[in-house]
Amino acid sequence: MKVEQRWCRTIELAADGRSVVVLDQAKLPYAIEWLTLTSVADVARAIRDMHVRGAPLIGATAAYGIAIAARDGVDLDGASAELAATRPTAINLRWALDQMRRALAGVPAADLVARAYDAAAKIADDDVATCEAIGEHGVALIAMVAEQHGRPVQVLTHCNAGWLATVDWGTALAPVYKAHEAGLPVHVWVDETRPRNQGMLTAWELQQHGVPHTVIVDNAGGHLMQHGRVDLCIVGTDRTTRNGDVCNKIGTYLKALAAHDNRVPFYAAVPSSSIDWTVGEPGEIPIEERHGNEVRFVRDVEVVPAASAVANPAFDVTPRRLVTGLITERGIATPETLRSMFGR
Amino acid sequence: MKVEQRWCRTIELAADGRSVVVLDQAKLPYAIEWLTLTSVADVARAIRDMHVRGAPLIGATAAYGIAIAARDGVDLDGASAELAATRPTAINLRWALDQMRRALAGVPAADLVARAYDAAAKIADDDVATCEAIGEHGVALIAMVAEQHGRPVQVLTHCNAGWLATVDWGTALAPVYKAHEAGLPVHVWVDETRPRNQGMLTAWELQQHGVPHTVIVDNAGGHLMQHGRVDLCIVGTDRTTRNGDVCNKIGTYLKALAAHDNRVPFYAAVPSSSIDWTVGEPGEIPIEERHGNEVRFVRDVEVVPAASAVANPAFDVTPRRLVTGLITERGIATPETLRSMFGR
Repeated sequence: MKVEQRWCRTIELAADGRSVVVLDQAKLPYAIEWLTLTSVADVARAIRDMHVRGAPLIGATAAYGIAIAARDGVDLDGASAELAATRPTAINLRWALDQMRRALAGVPAADLVARAYDAAAKIADDDVATCEAIGEHGVALIAMVAEQHGRPVQVLTHCNAGWLATVDWGTALAPVYKAHEAGLPVHVWVDETRPRNQGMLTAWELQQHGVPHTVIVDNAGGHLMQHGRVDLCIVGTDRTTRNGDVCNKIGTYLKALAAHDNRVPFYAAVPSSSIDWTVGEPGEIPIEERHGNEVRFVRDVEVVPAASAVANPAFDVTPRRLVTGLITERGIATPETLRSMFGR
Repeated sequence: MKVEQRWCRTIELAADGRSVVVLDQAKLPYAIEWLTLTSVADVARAIRDMHVRGAPLIGATAAYGIAIAARDGVDLDGASAELAATRPTAINLRWALDQMRRALAGVPAADLVARAYDAAAKIADDDVATCEAIGEHGVALIAMVAEQHGRPVQVLTHCNAGWLATVDWGTALAPVYKAHEAGLPVHVWVDETRPRNQGMLTAWELQQHGVPHTVIVDNAGGHLMQHGRVDLCIVGTDRTTRNGDVCNKIGTYLKALAAHDNRVPFYAAVPSSSIDWTVGEPGEIPIEERHGNEVRFVRDVEVVPAASAVANPAFDVTPRRLVTGLITERGIATPETLRSMFGR
């Protein structure tokens, strides 16, 4: 990923080799600031208050939280529970904490700290490799449309599943970056994604890379599809059932319905770390209900009458019948072939 | 309608009997201010800049614009063209200007001003009667659900099609007000309706009447329907084809898809003045593309990176196959029976 022309990652080990430095996403795109996290409480707060967000990045950050806990001599089960409680929906969080638990099981006290930092670094490095593989599989979908139509390929995405949501490359946007690098002309319709306006982040990171894009309100995507102005939807996922139902940012389902209604292919970019093999049906996924002030205010501006109630479910589930394919690090699966692709 | 416990209309003749006074909807809910419109230019600006908005109210306001033009000795065809150019999608605007042209055709110069004010007043009064009739037909739908379930009826609406969008009563919300008056428990899910956040207006007017409601972002409605938390969708319309396709605020189509997918009845409240009998298919309706700054900013806060493009289609069309019924002043039609209900 590029920030002001410099290549970097969203999470990096600090110069002291102990703390981690993360790009503060709550400040973007208004200011580019890096936060140093030095304690488990710092890490938990950064995840809960969405200074870091995006399912894969949440996982990597939580992993470093365990490493920091090991260094500080904090009880690891307690730290793990504290970090697991920060966000309920993204499965990567639980997955990363499980990976850490396994990596550290039975490790002698003398080696614990070094092993914990190694394991966290591996989770971060694996995320980069996974996202790059998703990009390589997914770019074929964009190339196909480009060949067919000989004009810029129109991709619609919801929320931010770019490199800001991962350690690098992104999930849904990895194919877009791969296409852009390969010289395939591509344009991205960026959903604003109320209530937290993560479309700002998507627009900002695309702009840092010079990828053409246009921001639209969440209401507009269906209309654009009705008028043939979207070739392809690609979204990220916070949790995917083993049957291919995709839980992602609230409003994804509406775009999947519109894609289906207008025969626009609808893909989810799915690192296998975000598949919950224990869950088969949409109803089994807990949906985070976030603070109503996210609806009530945009930044500091009140946009709801003070006397009115607000509700704020943060995710929804797109049923598998609306999903054309799942772009994983192993290739593009359909909901039917997902389990066999991973031998489950 | 009630504003701070006082019954009034959104547009009233000023005390001088010549100007009109309108509630400034660009200021709501932050401030309750009334604007006095004294010239055709005032009226055109009020419509274009959305100090008055909502298809029926736009029509009534434009009609008074013609009366003011007559009083000022302005060329009526020129005034009509100026007013017609303010907003392209709402058919009521053209309809009201046609009504005025017919009412004033061949009228002697001496009677012109008085006849023009009478004709404008009739359009406003007829709108009130039409909306009240829509409320009386539509309340049966709410009563039916209340009887079935014996709990507050959950109605979802998009944009503002309440009394603020009309002279009084509203279209989509008229059945809600009638239900509330009749003591039927009803709760309204209010879509925020980016980019202009007309949900604020809906929330504000419901609150002025004491109707329970909750504001949600535009992304949330599909998820609520998936979880059985919406009994009924009722929306307004800016233009309806003679076959029952409903053109309404951008994003309506997405809610209709979700309603269809979850077997939630989807109704449009349709005063016959908003039916375009000359148009049979969705593609024939011009969709207003509004200024990108509406997407770029919420109030004065920039929510899109400055370097990113924005697009801003203001309406979309919900195909008739997704429309359960059209609540008109003559009764509830289906797309199939709409023409015969009006003898067309």
